[in-house]
Amino acid sequence: MAQAPKYLTGDPSAINAFVDQFDVFLIDCDGVLWSGDHLFDGVAETLGLLRSKGKRTVFVTNNSTKSRPEYLKKFAKLGIPADVEDIFGSAYSAAIYISRILKLPPSKNKVFVLGEAGIENELRTENIPFIGGTDSNYRRDMTPEDWQGIADGSLLDPDVGCVLAGLDFHVNYLKLSHAHQYLRRGAVFLATNLDPTFPMNHNFFPGAGSIVIPLSNMAGEKPLALGKPSQAMMDAIEGKFKLNRARTCMIGDRLDTDIKFGIEGQLGGTLAVLSGVSKKADWEAEGAAAVPAFYVDQLGDLRGGGTGA
Amino acid sequence: MAQAPKYLTGDPSAINAFVDQFDVFLIDCDGVLWSGDHLFDGVAETLGLLRSKGKRTVFVTNNSTKSRPEYLKKFAKLGIPADVEDIFGSAYSAAIYISRILKLPPSKNKVFVLGEAGIENELRTENIPFIGGTDSNYRRDMTPEDWQGIADGSLLDPDVGCVLAGLDFHVNYLKLSHAHQYLRRGAVFLATNLDPTFPMNHNFFPGAGSIVIPLSNMAGEKPLALGKPSQAMMDAIEGKFKLNRARTCMIGDRLDTDIKFGIEGQLGGTLAVLSGVSKKADWEAEGAAAVPAFYVDQLGDLRGGGTGA
Repeated sequence: MAQAPKYLTGDPSAINAFVDQFDVFLIDCDGVLWSGDHLFDGVAETLGLLRSKGKRTVFVTNNSTKSRPEYLKKFAKLGIPADVEDIFGSAYSAAIYISRILKLPPSKNKVFVLGEAGIENELRTENIPFIGGTDSNYRRDMTPEDWQGIADGSLLDPDVGCVLAGLDFHVNYLKLSHAHQYLRRGAVFLATNLDPTFPMNHNFFPGAGSIVIPLSNMAGEKPLALGKPSQAMMDAIEGKFKLNRARTCMIGDRLDTDIKFGIEGQLGGTLAVLSGVSKKADWEAEGAAAVPAFYVDQLGDLRGGGTGA
Repeated sequence: MAQAPKYLTGDPSAINAFVDQFDVFLIDCDGVLWSGDHLFDGVAETLGLLRSKGKRTVFVTNNSTKSRPEYLKKFAKLGIPADVEDIFGSAYSAAIYISRILKLPPSKNKVFVLGEAGIENELRTENIPFIGGTDSNYRRDMTPEDWQGIADGSLLDPDVGCVLAGLDFHVNYLKLSHAHQYLRRGAVFLATNLDPTFPMNHNFFPGAGSIVIPLSNMAGEKPLALGKPSQAMMDAIEGKFKLNRARTCMIGDRLDTDIKFGIEGQLGGTLAVLSGVSKKADWEAEGAAAVPAFYVDQLGDLRGGGTGA
């Protein structure tokens, strides 16, 4: 049984001691900084405070619908200073994995994308050829020619050696059928992340995991996920930011992705915020996905430590 | 360990002995009678032969995309004599369950349908109000108003007390989002069936189970399935056809739906055909979903018994 998490909200000395333990904060976005287009109270001040103390803040997100530059626009729009190098998304993580680790043979180097522009843009930055994605040819109903050509393979691209699936707001039967056939023909099965739900407008919508799961269900095979809690993502972050894991803390709202990610990555600490998916009862329950070391009601509560430490 | 299944193909005396054991044959359609629009050899003659011996043939299908009258058209087109009363589909099974067993209160009596016209038509025959389904208002991309109105509930129908999901060739993010919200608000979760794949054009496409599974994944709750192998369907069939289970045989191509359905229903026998999904190696494997009592290469092989018995 893990030790009970320490509650920091409203406890300035505990907050200061917490912050002093770390040099790097890996911070989840949806449910921590914002929900949809709603920025939570005190987020910009908290980030400013951490940076004024010389801390590095890295935004680690499983949201694959935006590329890093697109994410940066969201930060700017919400008034949070950030640099593209501060952002590490699951689409970027997947592109890095495909180009630098998977290394598909030239005759099988194309990726079939079930997902949005964020994935496509990150694949482009790594010069990875792809089909599917936001291509309007795949955003339509099935025709008799599709049934026939997908079944007999005449409509499939023989160069596809990998299916990369993530959150797709335009998921449909045609794209699922294509992706399924590539998997049947031996394509490597990757997912940006497996979050069941996607927090928006203070509620929950289908997440990447719920777009990917029909493919797992048909193929009888689980994808390698390149987002939290996959340690493939932690390795990529460590390689890029040269972080000292013992002096790094993961901040997030989901036990099964964020907190698990930090614990399995053997980081020095984990901080849960209650502004998103997981609640206190979740880690107190039998068989909890993960138990954080610290928690606050919301990220902005870390302001309570003050700058004087 | 179940006894090894008896192989009947090319063995006239074994075929005659097999047929003589039963009065009723429950017969799966996709993968047994046909694959897509391709009728298998000898199907019409086999059915004629069984009927000439006084056997009742009931077509039991998990395909919910067609209502019984629509299914009848397919039988006619392929030259198989049948009557609407010979057909028992998972959409019909679901409609019967909702109207006669579930009995939703008047203020919560509407069904949100994730599926095709077959479901809608069977709900209509039981006078069950529904929304969703093939309504063109749900066949489109998400708008900002959808995100807001689905999240805050203003676009949801307060009368919905049940989500019925099945194979939907027009599945999309909007419909999944609606269905998910109704489940979050306590709607009863039903599925026509949970087949992972749908056989068409001699290949496999996403089945009802792969349309439903995003909802299970988000809700953390499995639906009650009204198709094979659910015994809710067997009970409904027994109630309608007054069959003697000991003198009834289930014929199908899938171990995990058809054969399991027959065994769990304690029917007198089960016959696997190898013209569809499951192969001999599947029941010989460790942890097989179910082991049939008999098998043939294809349904038409039962002609080998002749009419002289």
